[in-house]
Amino acid sequence: MFRKTRLFTPGPTPLLPAAQFAMASADIHHRTAEFRALYSKVLAQLKLFVGTQNDVIVLSSSGTGAMEAAVSNLTSPGDRVLVLSAGKFGERWVALAKAFGCQVDLVSAPYGQTFDPSQIRAALHADTRAVFVQATETSTAVRHCIQSIAETVRTSAPQALLVVDGITGLGTTHFDVDAWGIDVLIGGSQKAVMIPPGLAYLSVSERAWAAMETSKNPRYYFDLRKERKVAPKGESAYTPAVALIAGLGAALDYIAGQADGDLVEGRKLLIENAQTCAAMTRAGLTALGFTLFAPDAPAAAATAVAVPEGLDSGAVVKTLKARFGAVIANGQGEMQGKIFRIAHLGFFDYMDTIALLGALEFIARDPLRLPVQFGQAVAAAQQVFASRQAAPADPNTCLCGRDQCCRN
Amino acid sequence: MFRKTRLFTPGPTPLLPAAQFAMASADIHHRTAEFRALYSKVLAQLKLFVGTQNDVIVLSSSGTGAMEAAVSNLTSPGDRVLVLSAGKFGERWVALAKAFGCQVDLVSAPYGQTFDPSQIRAALHADTRAVFVQATETSTAVRHCIQSIAETVRTSAPQALLVVDGITGLGTTHFDVDAWGIDVLIGGSQKAVMIPPGLAYLSVSERAWAAMETSKNPRYYFDLRKERKVAPKGESAYTPAVALIAGLGAALDYIAGQADGDLVEGRKLLIENAQTCAAMTRAGLTALGFTLFAPDAPAAAATAVAVPEGLDSGAVVKTLKARFGAVIANGQGEMQGKIFRIAHLGFFDYMDTIALLGALEFIARDPLRLPVQFGQAVAAAQQVFASRQAAPADPNTCLCGRDQCCRN
Repeated sequence: MFRKTRLFTPGPTPLLPAAQFAMASADIHHRTAEFRALYSKVLAQLKLFVGTQNDVIVLSSSGTGAMEAAVSNLTSPGDRVLVLSAGKFGERWVALAKAFGCQVDLVSAPYGQTFDPSQIRAALHADTRAVFVQATETSTAVRHCIQSIAETVRTSAPQALLVVDGITGLGTTHFDVDAWGIDVLIGGSQKAVMIPPGLAYLSVSERAWAAMETSKNPRYYFDLRKERKVAPKGESAYTPAVALIAGLGAALDYIAGQADGDLVEGRKLLIENAQTCAAMTRAGLTALGFTLFAPDAPAAAATAVAVPEGLDSGAVVKTLKARFGAVIANGQGEMQGKIFRIAHLGFFDYMDTIALLGALEFIARDPLRLPVQFGQAVAAAQQVFASRQAAPADPNTCLCGRDQCCRN
Repeated sequence: MFRKTRLFTPGPTPLLPAAQFAMASADIHHRTAEFRALYSKVLAQLKLFVGTQNDVIVLSSSGTGAMEAAVSNLTSPGDRVLVLSAGKFGERWVALAKAFGCQVDLVSAPYGQTFDPSQIRAALHADTRAVFVQATETSTAVRHCIQSIAETVRTSAPQALLVVDGITGLGTTHFDVDAWGIDVLIGGSQKAVMIPPGLAYLSVSERAWAAMETSKNPRYYFDLRKERKVAPKGESAYTPAVALIAGLGAALDYIAGQADGDLVEGRKLLIENAQTCAAMTRAGLTALGFTLFAPDAPAAAATAVAVPEGLDSGAVVKTLKARFGAVIANGQGEMQGKIFRIAHLGFFDYMDTIALLGALEFIARDPLRLPVQFGQAVAAAQQVFASRQAAPADPNTCLCGRDQCCRN
């Protein structure tokens, strides 16, 4: 039988057709009025999408490039920084900070969990230059409560810059960037904004711009001050990934179009969409007997589940691809073989979610021989969808998933 | 929540991405070596796809254009022809034959049913010039048994030309064109070959070519002899729809690619694919309590179901589109409001079928308030899929769905 290739990976995510068309027709030179108009529009849209009055800078790089930009622009060799790490991307902050000569304090949480606020408080010092954290740790599908972390940082080490990797958080969870005091918030193109990899974007606070003047780490391509200087003219410092910028503009238009052209409202719907797909998926997989890997703080960006003892999660990934063409993600590093991950960020809908659960429950029976019934995961997901239709969730509510929000 | 637009209509059908890319890059003049190479390749592929040694001619028109070509090229005013009609497209044969001055004998069957072989035998005469029939009547989702009809025609009126509208039959049911003696078999681009509307193609037997020499009906754009004359040079008589031809070539490559480059085997898999989607859908809708509109002779091209008394099938179509973005077809003509139709021909797979059933069973409960359970249709479809995996159907078997094949 035919098997369409369908990405259910937490980046790259399925491409938006309108963005594909925009990319295919982006036959534009980057030093022209045509490009300047496009780029100015996209930069303005990104401020609405990120939800900030701060400048938003676009880099032609992967998200890791923007993470490096945050480290290299904001720190000097020997600076004390705090990294909050609970997975592969937290570990990337450690590696980046060390690569740029920082002295790293570390608060870590086991894979699948989020941080203990008291440990964060204890690890903040008067000379902590910056705090680096993920909004959602993509490798474990855990959501960290950035609102709570920001409050702790502001209270315990007000001088510290707060740098948040929102690469899979943007478009899946709410941020009040300026009110919470997020100095840098980083996004990537191949995530909730539904275009291919190749662009990163980051909002930068006035405090962060000021801090760059005293930072002594070397940077050239990722020197954010150069981008800030030319951005108001609709230019980028170096040759930008023009087609991706055209695609990003089309994707942001699409998101705004979900709410009659209001991008701020459209972003809320995008977040709610991911949260609904995630809630449906959690219910479906739980009904099949899988164990949620991050039950206390599940991200809406992706869902991670542990496979039963004796089963290799890689076999689930491979069988699903071979049987039905759907691509989900294995665990990374030491979680490889133990968990698999399903994305919800970006261009997914009810029918995608049902289709994936209908494929997973099929392979759960054959060849995996798990004791499940046909229709079981689908029905559980439909029940969740029906409940959310009846009583929509507020996308701005903290979703810590605990009786008491982790801010308390 | 996001709603992706998904076509489940029996033409146009979902576009194959590889064909979309080929169409987008078809910047070719049609009187060049480049186009001649493309067109020669596509004409050769079509002979394999149709499964015939006869010439296959391509027209830049809808399928109705090729139906007109069959009538205008093969008949003269006053000719006696037999039309077998059991739906809107059968009625189109009547209208076309009358428009070209033919004297029409009619064997009809009620909507949702196929023909009584004895009535066909009785309606064939020594002066019947041609017989016109659908392989699958798209308006009712009924499959007529062309093998049986061909045998009847060959036996009872051997002089009669057999013209088959296979617009939704090609790629969903098996034809042995040359062995059965099908003089003209017509296909359309927006059907199982997964590209947009705008091309029709038809195989023409030597008997039919000879008959054209004595046919006196007027024709110019649709004069098949003109196309036959220039086709061996890779040319078309008039400006062809170049992008669609490029797309068709890519689609036929894709079908061949399903069977390691063997287009004949790929066509069998395409048929089997539609038959599997159809069988899953029939089981799913039956589980929801819908009544199959064509239980005795269901087509694999599409499934038609009757809605319960008091329910408007248009409401199902509209609600499905509004809630989930999926587009199915209402009944046509007097069947409007009474049935809805779901396509399986072309680029559909297991996950599409599950997704649609998962959407239909949701709206069946809310807002249609039918007494169904979540997961019920999906589970029934999964059961069918599992059975077919265990014991694949032979796509060359007659699928009359009767205890005794209609050929007997």
